[in-house]
Amino acid sequence: MKFPKSILCIFILFVSVQLFARQHHTISTEKEPLEVSVNLRINKIYNINSVQETYQIDGYFMYTWKNEEAISYLKDSTANSIVFENDKARELINSDLWIPAFELINVQGSREVPNIRIEIYSDGIIEYEERFFATCSTNMDFKKFPFDSQVYQVAIEAFSYGSKKIVFTNPKLFLEKDHEDYLGEDWEFVNSDAHVVTKTYKYMDDSINSEKNSYSRVIFEIKAQRLSGYYEWQVLFPLLIIILASFSIFWIKEFGSQIGVGFTLMLTVVAFNFYSASILPKLPYNTFIEYVIIVGYIFIFLGIVAVIINHRINGEEDKGDKIPLLKYFRYLFPIVYALIMIVLYMSLIV
Amino acid sequence: MKFPKSILCIFILFVSVQLFARQHHTISTEKEPLEVSVNLRINKIYNINSVQETYQIDGYFMYTWKNEEAISYLKDSTANSIVFENDKARELINSDLWIPAFELINVQGSREVPNIRIEIYSDGIIEYEERFFATCSTNMDFKKFPFDSQVYQVAIEAFSYGSKKIVFTNPKLFLEKDHEDYLGEDWEFVNSDAHVVTKTYKYMDDSINSEKNSYSRVIFEIKAQRLSGYYEWQVLFPLLIIILASFSIFWIKEFGSQIGVGFTLMLTVVAFNFYSASILPKLPYNTFIEYVIIVGYIFIFLGIVAVIINHRINGEEDKGDKIPLLKYFRYLFPIVYALIMIVLYMSLIV
Amino acid sequence: MKFPKSILCIFILFVSVQLFARQHHTISTEKEPLEVSVNLRINKIYNINSVQETYQIDGYFMYTWKNEEAISYLKDSTANSIVFENDKARELINSDLWIPAFELINVQGSREVPNIRIEIYSDGIIEYEERFFATCSTNMDFKKFPFDSQVYQVAIEAFSYGSKKIVFTNPKLFLEKDHEDYLGEDWEFVNSDAHVVTKTYKYMDDSINSEKNSYSRVIFEIKAQRLSGYYEWQVLFPLLIIILASFSIFWIKEFGSQIGVGFTLMLTVVAFNFYSASILPKLPYNTFIEYVIIVGYIFIFLGIVAVIINHRINGEEDKGDKIPLLKYFRYLFPIVYALIMIVLYMSLIV
Amino acid sequence: MKFPKSILCIFILFVSVQLFARQHHTISTEKEPLEVSVNLRINKIYNINSVQETYQIDGYFMYTWKNEEAISYLKDSTANSIVFENDKARELINSDLWIPAFELINVQGSREVPNIRIEIYSDGIIEYEERFFATCSTNMDFKKFPFDSQVYQVAIEAFSYGSKKIVFTNPKLFLEKDHEDYLGEDWEFVNSDAHVVTKTYKYMDDSINSEKNSYSRVIFEIKAQRLSGYYEWQVLFPLLIIILASFSIFWIKEFGSQIGVGFTLMLTVVAFNFYSASILPKLPYNTFIEYVIIVGYIFIFLGIVAVIINHRINGEEDKGDKIPLLKYFRYLFPIVYALIMIVLYMSLIV
Amino acid sequence: MKFPKSILCIFILFVSVQLFARQHHTISTEKEPLEVSVNLRINKIYNINSVQETYQIDGYFMYTWKNEEAISYLKDSTANSIVFENDKARELINSDLWIPAFELINVQGSREVPNIRIEIYSDGIIEYEERFFATCSTNMDFKKFPFDSQVYQVAIEAFSYGSKKIVFTNPKLFLEKDHEDYLGEDWEFVNSDAHVVTKTYKYMDDSINSEKNSYSRVIFEIKAQRLSGYYEWQVLFPLLIIILASFSIFWIKEFGSQIGVGFTLMLTVVAFNFYSASILPKLPYNTFIEYVIIVGYIFIFLGIVAVIINHRINGEEDKGDKIPLLKYFRYLFPIVYALIMIVLYMSLIV
Repeated sequence: MKFPKSILCIFILFVSVQLFARQHHTISTEKEPLEVSVNLRINKIYNINSVQETYQIDGYFMYTWKNEEAISYLKDSTANSIVFENDKARELINSDLWIPAFELINVQGSREVPNIRIEIYSDGIIEYEERFFATCSTNMDFKKFPFDSQVYQVAIEAFSYGSKKIVFTNPKLFLEKDHEDYLGEDWEFVNSDAHVVTKTYKYMDDSINSEKNSYSRVIFEIKAQRLSGYYEWQVLFPLLIIILASFSIFWIKEFGSQIGVGFTLMLTVVAFNFYSASILPKLPYNTFIEYVIIVGYIFIFLGIVAVIINHRINGEEDKGDKIPLLKYFRYLFPIVYALIMIVLYMSLIV
Repeated sequence: MKFPKSILCIFILFVSVQLFARQHHTISTEKEPLEVSVNLRINKIYNINSVQETYQIDGYFMYTWKNEEAISYLKDSTANSIVFENDKARELINSDLWIPAFELINVQGSREVPNIRIEIYSDGIIEYEERFFATCSTNMDFKKFPFDSQVYQVAIEAFSYGSKKIVFTNPKLFLEKDHEDYLGEDWEFVNSDAHVVTKTYKYMDDSINSEKNSYSRVIFEIKAQRLSGYYEWQVLFPLLIIILASFSIFWIKEFGSQIGVGFTLMLTVVAFNFYSASILPKLPYNTFIEYVIIVGYIFIFLGIVAVIINHRINGEEDKGDKIPLLKYFRYLFPIVYALIMIVLYMSLIV
Repeated sequence: MKFPKSILCIFILFVSVQLFARQHHTISTEKEPLEVSVNLRINKIYNINSVQETYQIDGYFMYTWKNEEAISYLKDSTANSIVFENDKARELINSDLWIPAFELINVQGSREVPNIRIEIYSDGIIEYEERFFATCSTNMDFKKFPFDSQVYQVAIEAFSYGSKKIVFTNPKLFLEKDHEDYLGEDWEFVNSDAHVVTKTYKYMDDSINSEKNSYSRVIFEIKAQRLSGYYEWQVLFPLLIIILASFSIFWIKEFGSQIGVGFTLMLTVVAFNFYSASILPKLPYNTFIEYVIIVGYIFIFLGIVAVIINHRINGEEDKGDKIPLLKYFRYLFPIVYALIMIVLYMSLIV
Repeated sequence: MKFPKSILCIFILFVSVQLFARQHHTISTEKEPLEVSVNLRINKIYNINSVQETYQIDGYFMYTWKNEEAISYLKDSTANSIVFENDKARELINSDLWIPAFELINVQGSREVPNIRIEIYSDGIIEYEERFFATCSTNMDFKKFPFDSQVYQVAIEAFSYGSKKIVFTNPKLFLEKDHEDYLGEDWEFVNSDAHVVTKTYKYMDDSINSEKNSYSRVIFEIKAQRLSGYYEWQVLFPLLIIILASFSIFWIKEFGSQIGVGFTLMLTVVAFNFYSASILPKLPYNTFIEYVIIVGYIFIFLGIVAVIINHRINGEEDKGDKIPLLKYFRYLFPIVYALIMIVLYMSLIV
Repeated sequence: MKFPKSILCIFILFVSVQLFARQHHTISTEKEPLEVSVNLRINKIYNINSVQETYQIDGYFMYTWKNEEAISYLKDSTANSIVFENDKARELINSDLWIPAFELINVQGSREVPNIRIEIYSDGIIEYEERFFATCSTNMDFKKFPFDSQVYQVAIEAFSYGSKKIVFTNPKLFLEKDHEDYLGEDWEFVNSDAHVVTKTYKYMDDSINSEKNSYSRVIFEIKAQRLSGYYEWQVLFPLLIIILASFSIFWIKEFGSQIGVGFTLMLTVVAFNFYSASILPKLPYNTFIEYVIIVGYIFIFLGIVAVIINHRINGEEDKGDKIPLLKYFRYLFPIVYALIMIVLYMSLIV
């Protein structure tokens, strides 16, 4: 399988040239970093998962910057701009026009990008827009759960270019105002924010002050308040009824019934305990709802202890009570419980 | 690795030309927007998920428009039309014939598209058809659950071209009528609709009235009624039996049994409570089924309170009742419960 | 960036020609539709999901047809046939030899196709074979569950070509006979079938009788009987024991125990109720197993009512029964229950 | 859009030639089948799922065969071998060197292949290696569960070439011996095996004896013993304690307590019943653990029947027992239970 | 379809040459292995799954090595380095510059790589960086659960090149120190480590000492301590309260209540048993939390046995206790339980 050397050369050339041709334009502005303005329009925040502290975002990113070289792409066209969609856009990114890659920082896995649009305007403005679906995560504070607010965040950086090469400017966050439930029915929008920070790593270069370690980052934030209706009616209300019912043991005279009721209610609180375990992550601290459950445990336990003590002191047939312990407990337990609940609620406001 | 400059030029040229060649035809009609008619045939709506308010759609989109330039593609052919399937269709989209991208608005993640067909007719009509599988979402109203109806929606827009460039006309929705259970066995079709609206964003351009912010949107809607048989027999019927059984405590004379029954039934209602929590999202409002459960809680709680009060007043051995409280409760409780249930059912009709 | 027009032309040409070259052979037989014979070999039906009414199929499709043009592909070869695997096959499909796309109708999402083989024989026969994994769905009838049979179906159509262009002939279905458990251990094969029908849509063309609306469809069907051992021993047997045990309340003299047992058993039936809810979809009708559970609810409820009535009539200490109600119930309840069960079982046979 | 015919020809040629060039080398040995030796190194077997009877395999396949034609690929190189990784390997497969596709038979869905290596040695040996992740399935026999052993299998065939073209030789199976828990912590390796069989289908050709229906298959097998510690301590031990506790009803004199304990324990066995249902598939036969549970049901049921019979015979106050039934039961029940358990354990050994 | 042989030759040549051109540079250093230094920056370790012993890692790999040949890629550029992102980087890998593939050893499935950067510096340094998301697994030791520490590991090898060709040097592990909860809220960082080992297989070559069987491996390790707050408050605390409450049976005089309480609490411990089964894998050994539960079972069982024995000895009405067994048990049980708990806690420290 022999063949003239010259043809071989041409092909080796071909491969090499392609690479050269594509790369040597990458950055034209050596002195000043490129200014990229970012718009984020959020269509929906969905699948908010309190257990994994994640949420999925359906939105649109629009990056805009200026590159004089791009003008040549519409030289022949009479239109004001030229649009590259999807595969055509991907081909453009892979050509010799420099279009940098941006990455989501607080994402889990790759984002899905069903559609891309790159539009080049006659003044050299390049608009890169994508619709994306991403699973993001933030650290959530559940101490006041289910009366908590959370901050949903999206953070972006350029993947390969530090703040010496690319800086973000003028970030804007849009929310579909007419599309009322963009946050799901159980969250209420509080406020939103978008700002640019500079993030310093010590990973890229050994000297921490090196310019290589410095990146421009945009942070979009949406603060929302949980609508607690579900937890109030499905968890707190039944729990309250059960704790209230547990105080009935001091109005029962028969010792057997007192004990039976006490232990049945303890089993019920265990059920609520396991339920609350299934809706929250395995937190090292206790949430409001867990304090309510723990207080429930303790009161039912103390109730059982109280009736046993009363039983030991006053005998099985409590007709002629020597010490009217039960009568004291009838008022003591609800009052102390009410006080603790008030303190717990107060702690929510602080 | 030297090589003549001229060859280098040819290859740079090659890359550039390809892009030019492909792009400069994009829109031939500058004055009038392109009219695209849309057909949606739904094969099946499946995995209707009440907890996440999503449903999956297996269907076919058919977009039809006219482009005189396309006629050149069948110049040599004697046939009336030419078909491009799958990879060939994708190649055609990536060529210099302008085929715009459409996007689903209320989708979650990318849609799956196993098959694409582009057919070009000898009169310049272009037919783009795809089979798709998409997970869509709508805001569902569960206030009357499980006697609710829901509207399943599919909304489409052109991704890159506003209403100045593309407008939708003549949307049609087809449902597989012979394929009876296209909605699953637990939903009954009520009616369907397809209409075109103009959606205005303020994201693309800072001035809200800019033409860039205006997009043509097609909305397909299918209204369906939930078949509530499952919930009637598996949730409401057992609950009713349990509440009925709870009224038996007023027919029991022994105080211990009264109390024991009351608390056992409360535990049972807790089980129904957790079950209803697993089939619905964490709504800030209460559904019909949850009202039934909450009323159940309250009646069982009040029943316990009632027997304790009776016990306190009439003593442990209620042979000679001083006040026949239990006898009053025997009729009072069922009547009040029936009244409340009637009011709840009435609220469904309104 | 100037360059000679002639070279530009060549490249524009190149792109256009490729498309021409590939398309103008698509259908060589204008008068007669192409006859495609289909073989389906099923390796395994797995993950049979009664809740979503889906099942996954691991199988092989083999489509065979004749195309004289294909003979040119082995002109130089001395072999009897030439094989194109995977990427090579995909390239062949994308070349100018016409290989149509087939679609699964009752599928959910795209099928996975790990391997493709296209073999061209010297007599112009083309064999297209693929291994596939697909999630299919059918409407299942659970009225007799867990003593039901189901029909697992696979339906195929050509995606782009109506029955005027492609008709299926001679469909054959193969099952791995030596691979005993191809249906899972809990299903027993009854029979199988494969037939061709013509399906008419009204979607492709407005006039319903248009040839465009008519497609050839192959339907493969496997009927299987559920092996009910699991449900008999894990659900029906415990339920039966519990209902039997519930009749013990008529042998107990003490009213408190009667009531306690009655309500404990009701709670147990609730547990079975929730279990049966987790293995079946939310059906608007009741299955056999649910009838058994509902009858269980009713009998336990009636048992409670019966002992209360007996208690009211005969007093707390039933030493000298005025009316021997309990003695009647002891025989009445089991006999009526047995009769109802017999009727339910009879309804399975019809 | 006219252009000289000659150029058109060149391009049509180009497309056709590519296909020719690539295919006509496919099989060089017409008389003797190609001998392919297979190595499988298993890194880990994980996510062993008893409910779906699947397990995931993380491993490396290495196929080795000899093809003199491949030598030309290192003509210019002075090295002993040449390596093609990932995309380069995929390109090589798609070139004119014949590299057949192999398929996993007992797989569910496509396998993931993160890395491929093809190495061509100077003596014409071709080594194809891939790391793969696959979900495999086998029929598992749970009759002795949780004291069962299972055989984890991996079966391979050439996808397109029957045993006339490709035969496997010398299969070897390697397990990471130093990587102790390659099977997970709850399985203990027993032995492994690798052998070649010939599998006959009747699918490829109508005549069953046709050579087309015969394929060479390699079967790798790993036999492992379940470490039952978890089930012994979390299921069997609590069950045993509960059954033991149930015999206490014969030591209790009070009839009400006897009945109450009996029914509470029945409810507990229901809980274990549902738990065992969640860890095993819906088998038509009973496993060891299910026999233990069913025997538990029966003994508790018989215990309840026994105390009721005793109660009917000996009256409510059993001070002066006429027939000392309870005393007999005290010893009869545990002895019979022990005997049945011994028989069950014996059946494990057989 | 005839055509001149010469043109055919050129195209065959074309395909062949491409492959030659790409491969014959692969390894330039025949004598010394290539030294590759590895940096791993971990952004987040999330979805730590104790049941499957897996965790997901969101991080950045940076591989750096020197290759003089790469300098030619920036010959024309005045910049200090040249960046290839994503598709451009993939194209570079597929070109004739040698960039080896690295694989994660303890991974499950392929890693996701949303962004790749290859930077070539003017001194021939090549920097390969990727962001990745991978599901890794390690063998976890749960004996001290929930007071355990675990070592999260990431192990890397070159896929195709043994330690004769590639050796790793200077591995560094970076953790986002300012991003406090990189390990999730329920884990506390203890220490980290990175080291290089040589791994020997016997899979590549039959002779175990062959150089082919030896690979350089980098192991990154992060040791973390579980924050046990959740388990203390949601599992151990309720369990402790329940066991404490179980000792109340010795303070109750009535035998019926003693028995009822005992069995109700046994049911509650069964619930905790099933809960602990859902948060841990099916281990052949018992964890700390399971020992606590098993001890709970045994104490409640012994408590039931104790009250029955007492009842048998001292009669139903225990007014005049012959032997004050209950009084002994009142102190014996809590003391023994406390001792066992202390021993269990002590075993954690050892």
